[in-house]
Amino acid sequence: MSNVNEFTHKLNIRYPVIQAPMLGVTTPDMVAAISNAGGLGSLPVGGLSPAFSRELIRKTRELTKKPFAVNLFVYDLPDADQRMIDEMGLFLERLTRQYNIKYNRPVAPAPFNHYTDLLDVLVTEKVGIVSFTFGVPNKEFVDRLKQEKTLLIGTATCSLEAAILEQNGIDVIVAQGVEAGGHRGTFLHAANLPLIGSMSLIPMVVDTVKLPVIAAGGISDGRGIKAAFALGASAVQLGSAFLTSNESLAGDAHKKAILSSRDIDTVVTNTFTGRWARGIRNEFVSALETSGMPMPPYPFQMNLTNPLRLEAQKNEDTSFFPIWAGQSASRSKQLPAARIFKKLVDEAGLEPR
Amino acid sequence: MSNVNEFTHKLNIRYPVIQAPMLGVTTPDMVAAISNAGGLGSLPVGGLSPAFSRELIRKTRELTKKPFAVNLFVYDLPDADQRMIDEMGLFLERLTRQYNIKYNRPVAPAPFNHYTDLLDVLVTEKVGIVSFTFGVPNKEFVDRLKQEKTLLIGTATCSLEAAILEQNGIDVIVAQGVEAGGHRGTFLHAANLPLIGSMSLIPMVVDTVKLPVIAAGGISDGRGIKAAFALGASAVQLGSAFLTSNESLAGDAHKKAILSSRDIDTVVTNTFTGRWARGIRNEFVSALETSGMPMPPYPFQMNLTNPLRLEAQKNEDTSFFPIWAGQSASRSKQLPAARIFKKLVDEAGLEPR
Repeated sequence: MSNVNEFTHKLNIRYPVIQAPMLGVTTPDMVAAISNAGGLGSLPVGGLSPAFSRELIRKTRELTKKPFAVNLFVYDLPDADQRMIDEMGLFLERLTRQYNIKYNRPVAPAPFNHYTDLLDVLVTEKVGIVSFTFGVPNKEFVDRLKQEKTLLIGTATCSLEAAILEQNGIDVIVAQGVEAGGHRGTFLHAANLPLIGSMSLIPMVVDTVKLPVIAAGGISDGRGIKAAFALGASAVQLGSAFLTSNESLAGDAHKKAILSSRDIDTVVTNTFTGRWARGIRNEFVSALETSGMPMPPYPFQMNLTNPLRLEAQKNEDTSFFPIWAGQSASRSKQLPAARIFKKLVDEAGLEPR
Repeated sequence: MSNVNEFTHKLNIRYPVIQAPMLGVTTPDMVAAISNAGGLGSLPVGGLSPAFSRELIRKTRELTKKPFAVNLFVYDLPDADQRMIDEMGLFLERLTRQYNIKYNRPVAPAPFNHYTDLLDVLVTEKVGIVSFTFGVPNKEFVDRLKQEKTLLIGTATCSLEAAILEQNGIDVIVAQGVEAGGHRGTFLHAANLPLIGSMSLIPMVVDTVKLPVIAAGGISDGRGIKAAFALGASAVQLGSAFLTSNESLAGDAHKKAILSSRDIDTVVTNTFTGRWARGIRNEFVSALETSGMPMPPYPFQMNLTNPLRLEAQKNEDTSFFPIWAGQSASRSKQLPAARIFKKLVDEAGLEPR
């Protein structure tokens, strides 16, 4: 597995195992636990302000001296279709009234933080590894981070996206299989949303690019890690495995919903944010799907659902906030993240670099 | 890999590699080529008459003395919604007129061959291995074949289906990942069609049942075979890998469409048959999807599209017949099936039993 050794050497980590960035549930504690255990933690700051991003990075650095990745959402704000947004807002008012959920429809657009706004933070905080999803950063951004010797990790959901990332100077590709929980990293607009299973996607991406490939999606134990390496991956990335860890921000009802789910319970939906993401089907998803309403694109739909998601989370009402989860999420464990990590490494029989 | 050895011993084959049944393109020559090479060929007879099924079985037996499986469609005819069928018929008349395709709408229902009609053929032809999809055979059918020591292989697309097959006395489970081409074997009607990637599905099914599990979906080379075994499978099943083999009935245009496809080109659609199946998106699929027409269930939709599928196939018009293909189908090779098989076995480093 020389590609695996090259990868751990390149990133200066002991094991080729990455904790996936999960905005909303990942904490600096989770990131540090994984990095301290010899893996690579990922700190999600997608859409957050530069100031708050800097605070989270510093907080994480207080907890670990090891490398960790900072994860961005790379996209440009689309044009707003105000009529579509207003109609969805009215619909959500009616829906929440029906379900007796407090909802104050946002009247102004939410402040938008473009990924380039974070460039200064990434440079001045000397972030060594930047991962991202939803697109390809512009040339100026890539060039500036390359000057700093920052390692860039992009996300692909099909081989064409992997090729485009490689052409744009990205160093490492995450191949996100259909099994993965949370947002699809897709950035090409094809006739079909790419929903390619890891068994097909990993070897396809490995054969398409000359870069190291990180397998993401459906990996829940040592068997999955071994399978990913057999398919040609240089490393693995797991999110759901750490969803119910002690360091996760998920509340009790949230964790319970994940642990009691079945393999058929997740669905790829754009109802919560306007972008396709995998989570457990709940009342909100079903209500929006059956409504037939056109979905304002990300981040407009996310801004519209924000108050009701927060309210539902506060009340631990799992029917109205997104329970992002991969297809193997029910195998997650309620343990410290470091113990989960150790178990994975042991099961896969991985030797430290 | 003791589970793999047990499996090959149980089936009396040399390698744990199965050619998936692909009705319409699989020939007795293909089945015999795989079985003679030490794998397990699968002869599809789903929906065919007992007389024709017998003929195909005998033809295959003339070509090989080795074991092969006979594959059935296990389902009961649903009630016909004549109005829905008529409306779809009228729509297809308009559509084919628009595309200048000859189409005579079937006025009478097609003759229906229930799987139980084949029991006598299976028994008298001493078929040793029967695989099936779309459901669970009834107790009488299972008991009768068990009397004959016939090995029964069922298809599951989620762990609950696997558990139900086990409870009903089935001997081996095919775990069909989302990557697989052709019809989904799903027989439970859940809120979501199970579209579980092999990376999640295989270990989940392995942990759910005590039976040997055959991994199907997305396996295109030795890496995929090794990965499936790492995930706990006892054998692998490949369909798309043999789609463009010399023994396949697929015509030149059909083969070309597969070989030139990209990983994002397939879609799971019920437009051709009324049952969900993975194939390359073409004009027919897009036209039916955008029509918003309700789809008569299988086999009614299949009967309605039958004349236009045959006509398009005759004219090698790939825009109007189904090009079933898995997510790795473009990796298929135009070679004799036995050579494809040998390459797979060599790449995976499989030792003969």
